[in-house]
Amino acid sequence: MAHAFAALADWGTSNFRLWLVDAEGRVLAETQSPEGMGGLAREQYEGVLEGHLTALSAPADLPVMIAGMAGARTGWIEVPYLDAPAKLATVAEGAFRAPHAGREVYILPGVCQRAPLPYNVMRGEETQLAGAAAAGHADGLFCLPGTHSKWAELEGGTLTRFATIMTGELFDLLATKSILRLSVEASSPTTSANPDFIDGVATALEPGFAFTASLFSIRAAALLADLKPDAAAARLSGLLIGHEIAGIGRDMTIDRPVRLIGSARLTELYGKALEIAGHTSQVLDGSHLVRDGLFVAARLKFSS
Amino acid sequence: MAHAFAALADWGTSNFRLWLVDAEGRVLAETQSPEGMGGLAREQYEGVLEGHLTALSAPADLPVMIAGMAGARTGWIEVPYLDAPAKLATVAEGAFRAPHAGREVYILPGVCQRAPLPYNVMRGEETQLAGAAAAGHADGLFCLPGTHSKWAELEGGTLTRFATIMTGELFDLLATKSILRLSVEASSPTTSANPDFIDGVATALEPGFAFTASLFSIRAAALLADLKPDAAAARLSGLLIGHEIAGIGRDMTIDRPVRLIGSARLTELYGKALEIAGHTSQVLDGSHLVRDGLFVAARLKFSS
Repeated sequence: MAHAFAALADWGTSNFRLWLVDAEGRVLAETQSPEGMGGLAREQYEGVLEGHLTALSAPADLPVMIAGMAGARTGWIEVPYLDAPAKLATVAEGAFRAPHAGREVYILPGVCQRAPLPYNVMRGEETQLAGAAAAGHADGLFCLPGTHSKWAELEGGTLTRFATIMTGELFDLLATKSILRLSVEASSPTTSANPDFIDGVATALEPGFAFTASLFSIRAAALLADLKPDAAAARLSGLLIGHEIAGIGRDMTIDRPVRLIGSARLTELYGKALEIAGHTSQVLDGSHLVRDGLFVAARLKFSS
Repeated sequence: MAHAFAALADWGTSNFRLWLVDAEGRVLAETQSPEGMGGLAREQYEGVLEGHLTALSAPADLPVMIAGMAGARTGWIEVPYLDAPAKLATVAEGAFRAPHAGREVYILPGVCQRAPLPYNVMRGEETQLAGAAAAGHADGLFCLPGTHSKWAELEGGTLTRFATIMTGELFDLLATKSILRLSVEASSPTTSANPDFIDGVATALEPGFAFTASLFSIRAAALLADLKPDAAAARLSGLLIGHEIAGIGRDMTIDRPVRLIGSARLTELYGKALEIAGHTSQVLDGSHLVRDGLFVAARLKFSS
């Protein structure tokens, strides 16, 4: 481990990932665990981190750069948000040093938006976007679909504005906790070729579409027209993703291919929905982006 | 109890109400309990009903008319929906006799909509509307706000079309189960004068409003601008009710005062939201409407 330059950690609500990298960003060792910040008290962070560093035989003086919810108000130490527009290559200038008995540990800030309204916040996605910008994707509209989908506009490596849509969380709540749970198979794996998904997207893209008014018809169609639970799931997914894209289209300019970063399943669905809406998209390999963004930050902070 | 004409029951998912009435519909005795159909197995219905009838000293041959979820697929006996347009005064023609060892017991059908799409169903509200029509409110647009708000168009006592919006259920899910629970005081009693409620309604009425895109800003405003939990609840309520009215305005004609039937708190909020949208409304006393509608049905079925 003579050539280790830094440790990089992606510490989210429900997951922890750690890499040791050399001065060129090459991975020397890595690990992950379900010890997300959601299950930790403030005084546990140092011990959890040291346990994993020891397991990877990290030197005692190796500095650590962390991104994600560890910097939230309820995390290890609250790191105030940077305001958008925010230059992604220098986000590390806003990092805070975490309380740690013997090691240099920094936590990156998230980014917030106060103007234009509405208010918005992100913690973690800005590091993925920094990784994308470092790889040459420094301009355009990015979509990171998930529990809370993020859409972000980049101009020359600067995050200019962004939006958050709770699409994944709404799908889960509606499919498992609402009256629709009686008609929707929540775990059904919808594909982009599913006609009910396509129909849901198209419905949600119609002018004047009212989202909440569209929901109960799923239950009624199950009772009256034998809509099957997997078709109902596909339709609900289509309504949500179509409505998400319609809303983004009103606030942001979609005139270039949307860069999709996420799981294969979600990027396929979003790519199809964007196509139905008349847009193009391009899937970026997101597997290294957080680590790449953390490396950009570590180089800025630890190279001097 | 010599003058008892019929027993009338409103048997919903979570509540049971029973009235004994004379031939003019005057109440001779009444009771209620939390024994809704949601907690009953099919073979328990007769016993529960007989227990309450006995407690009210009902004659052994007194016929019973029931409205509500007791007629659902998972209720006492499934009573198929009538198709809209449906004449409310004669809904009882579609009633089914429930299996009962010694008494004439009928359950009223709900009403469904197959055209125009989308599909829709109601069970119970048609009986409230029958009561309203019998009281002279036989035309216009009715709104019954609640967990699943119903909007219904009546023409000469015929239910021509209707819509269901899951507004109350969505408020509860978002305020208590989603990420917004961290910022929203779900039990906060919003009033129609609350500026955050008014602002939420106005926002939702703007052309091109995207509901799902509006939600996360409540969380972000709590983090960035100290939006208080009661203000957040008012705003969420305003967004939901405003979006509900915007959706109805696209599908139905709101050119007369909307007849509001519901709790004082909800009819006040909906009345204000309708006013913001440029419409007028009129609150009907809904406390007797189910019983009145049941009496209309009982008279048709039991007077011959």
